Amino acid sequence: MVEKSEHIVRSYEEQLKKLREMIARMGGLAERQVADAAYALVRRDTELAAEVIGRDGEIDQLERDIENFCVRLLALRQPMAGDLRFIIAAMKVSNAIERIGDYARNCAKRAVVIAQQPQLTGFSSFQWMAKLVQENLKESIDALVNQDATAAERVWAADASVDDVYNGIFRELLTHMMEDTRNITAATHLLFVAKNYERIGDHATNIAETVFYSVRGAGLPDERPKGDTSPFAVARPPA
Amino acid sequence: MVEKSEHIVRSYEEQLKKLREMIARMGGLAERQVADAAYALVRRDTELAAEVIGRDGEIDQLERDIENFCVRLLALRQPMAGDLRFIIAAMKVSNAIERIGDYARNCAKRAVVIAQQPQLTGFSSFQWMAKLVQENLKESIDALVNQDATAAERVWAADASVDDVYNGIFRELLTHMMEDTRNITAATHLLFVAKNYERIGDHATNIAETVFYSVRGAGLPDERPKGDTSPFAVARPPA
Repeated sequence: MVEKSEHIVRSYEEQLKKLREMIARMGGLAERQVADAAYALVRRDTELAAEVIGRDGEIDQLERDIENFCVRLLALRQPMAGDLRFIIAAMKVSNAIERIGDYARNCAKRAVVIAQQPQLTGFSSFQWMAKLVQENLKESIDALVNQDATAAERVWAADASVDDVYNGIFRELLTHMMEDTRNITAATHLLFVAKNYERIGDHATNIAETVFYSVRGAGLPDERPKGDTSPFAVARPPA
Repeated sequence: MVEKSEHIVRSYEEQLKKLREMIARMGGLAERQVADAAYALVRRDTELAAEVIGRDGEIDQLERDIENFCVRLLALRQPMAGDLRFIIAAMKVSNAIERIGDYARNCAKRAVVIAQQPQLTGFSSFQWMAKLVQENLKESIDALVNQDATAAERVWAADASVDDVYNGIFRELLTHMMEDTRNITAATHLLFVAKNYERIGDHATNIAETVFYSVRGAGLPDERPKGDTSPFAVARPPA
C-alpha cells in the first residue's frame, strides 16, 4: 500500500510538473510572437509577418490542451488549496496567453499593410514598447512556473512605463495624420498596433495578478493606477 | 443517512442555481453597459457616459465573487463530468464578461471626448453594431444559464454580421479623416469604439463556444470564418 500511494503522489507531482512545462512552452511561443511581430513591423518584413500569422494556431492548440489537462486533473485528483489554486491559475493564464497570441497575429496582419504604405518615423518607440511588454510577459510566466509572488508583484507594478510609451505613440501618430492625409492609412493601423501592445501589457499584468493570488491565496492590495490616458486624448490640427 | 444525503444533494443543486443566477446578473449588467455606452455616444450624453464608467466596478466585483464561489464549489463538492464542465465554463464566461465590461467602459470614456468634437455622420451604424453585439451577448449568456447548446451554436454563427458592420464603419471613418483633418480626433476615437464593439462581439462568440463545449463535452466542428478584414484595409486620400 505504501508503495502504491507513493507512486500516486509521484505521478501527481509529475502531472503538475507537466502542466508547468506546458505553460512555460506556451508563454515562450507567445513571447516570440510578440517580438517577431514588432520586428516584422519595424523592418517591413512581410515574410516574417506571414510566419507570425501562421504560427498562431500552435498557441490556440496549446490553450485547448492545457484546459483539457486541467479539467482531467480536477476530475481525477480533486486537488485542494494551493494545488487547486495553481490549476485554476494555469487555465486563466493560458486563456490570457491565447489572447496575447491573437494580438500579436493582428499586429502581424497590420504589418503587412503598413509595409506597403509611406514610411513614418518614430518606430523606435514601437520596438521599445514591444520589448517592455515582452519582458513583463516573460517575468509573469516565470513567476507562475516558479510560484514566485514577489516576482509577480514586480511585473504588476512595471506596466505603468508601457502605458507612458503608448500615450506618446498615440499623440505622435495623430500628429502624423494631421500633417499629411497620405499618412492616415499607415498611422491608423499603427494606432491599432500600439493599442494591441498596450493590451498585451495589460494581459501580462493580469497574469501577474493571477499568479500572486494563486501563490498567496489573497489578492494584491489595491487596484493598480491605470496609466493609459489615450481614451481622453485630443489632438489639434496643425496651425 | 438518506435524509442527510438528500439534503446535501439539494444544497448542491441550490449552489449551482446560485452560480447560474450570479452569471445571469453579471451578464445583464454587461448588456446594460454595452447599450448605455452606445446610447451615450450617439446622444453625446456625457452624464450617462460617466455613469457607465462608474458602474464598471460592480462587474469586476462579480467576477471575483464568481471565481471564489467556483473555487469553493470545486474544493468542497469535487464535481465530475457535466457539473465540472459547467463550473469551469462559468469561470471562463465571467472572465469574458469582465473584459466586455472593460470595453464598454473604454467606449464611455471615448464618448466623453467625442462629445466635445465636431459631429460626424454615420452614427446609425454604431447603434446597429451595439444592438447586434448586445443581442449576441444576451443569447450567449442565456445559453449558458439554460445549458442550451443549440442556442450557443446560433450565436456562434451570428457574429459574421457584426464584422460586416464593423468593416463598413472602419472605411467610412478613414474617409472622414481624409476629407477634413479636423475630423481626425473624433474619427480616431470612433475607430477604437468600433473596434471595442467588434471585440465585444468576439467575446460573445467565445462565450457561445465555451457554452457549447460545456454542454456537449465536445467543441464546435470548425473554426468560424473570421469576417474582420479591417487589418488589411487600405484607404486612399481623396483625389
